[in-house]
Amino acid sequence: MKKELNPTTAVVPCPVVLLSVVGEDRPNIITLSWVANVCSNPPSIVAGIRPQRHSYEMVKNAGDFVLNIPSIDQIDAAEFAGTKSGREFDKFKECNLTPVPATKVNSPMIEECPINIECKVTKIDSPGVHDVFTAEVVAVHVDESVLNDKGRFIASKANLFTYLPLNGEYWSLGKHIQT
Amino acid sequence: MKKELNPTTAVVPCPVVLLSVVGEDRPNIITLSWVANVCSNPPSIVAGIRPQRHSYEMVKNAGDFVLNIPSIDQIDAAEFAGTKSGREFDKFKECNLTPVPATKVNSPMIEECPINIECKVTKIDSPGVHDVFTAEVVAVHVDESVLNDKGRFIASKANLFTYLPLNGEYWSLGKHIQT
Repeated sequence: MKKELNPTTAVVPCPVVLLSVVGEDRPNIITLSWVANVCSNPPSIVAGIRPQRHSYEMVKNAGDFVLNIPSIDQIDAAEFAGTKSGREFDKFKECNLTPVPATKVNSPMIEECPINIECKVTKIDSPGVHDVFTAEVVAVHVDESVLNDKGRFIASKANLFTYLPLNGEYWSLGKHIQT
Repeated sequence: MKKELNPTTAVVPCPVVLLSVVGEDRPNIITLSWVANVCSNPPSIVAGIRPQRHSYEMVKNAGDFVLNIPSIDQIDAAEFAGTKSGREFDKFKECNLTPVPATKVNSPMIEECPINIECKVTKIDSPGVHDVFTAEVVAVHVDESVLNDKGRFIASKANLFTYLPLNGEYWSLGKHIQT
């Protein structure tokens, strides 16, 4: 038996990303879950950001950003960067994260995150309270500690986690069940 | 130390959804991972679909679809519906899945999936080889077996899984680590 709920954002499980963006005074970080790969070629992603957020204008002005995929080591940083504002806090400093130069965009990457995805904004849509940025992936960096000697991603070493908006829980990944 | 890879769809972990859509002859199912919640109000999602896929024209014609979130029990169906074409196969029949009427859209829901998200298409974009459908969520159904007596989603009972496009692996969820 099914129960009908009010319409809501019920896609699960969701990625959690730390979006880093260059700024006039200092770079900023915002944690997002309204994010996905949406096109394989050119590789493109979308990211939903509320216009009220400090990072929103920063992304619009920069025209680029980096999606940094955190491991569980960065879950407290993800919580901080998702709930505090860059207007009040230097989030790199508060979260003990290190900005390092990207290769193709002006926004910095977060050194501590195992995966960094450099993106250039191509489009902004406004379906409602979140604006949706479409961006092309222009470079990807992966920490050698989560790659095998053939350059293949080893998920068991990355300690990824996921977010379930249906109940607000963060979950670790479990086991590799199929390829 | 980081290694720079060619630009690719590197957001991880990703949802896996079975999109069901009404058709003239029979309904169809396509498995997608290029999917996300992108806007909280009105609740909206995006789904990337290649125009070559049989479901693409079906979704365009129907103007609606259902995103069905599978449990691990449906992983073989997800694999089948993601790699075979609805032009050749009746995927509901081949996968032993049951189409049941939705309440707000013409496309059917998949009874066996614990979560069904009814969606109406609002926009189609073309960033590249995938077109990106934006759609508003108009109803959500959740199986009572994954809800507690207060109607809260109990993730441990849903046996969700996730997809990692970086290496093509499906992973189960592990533990609840934070709220």
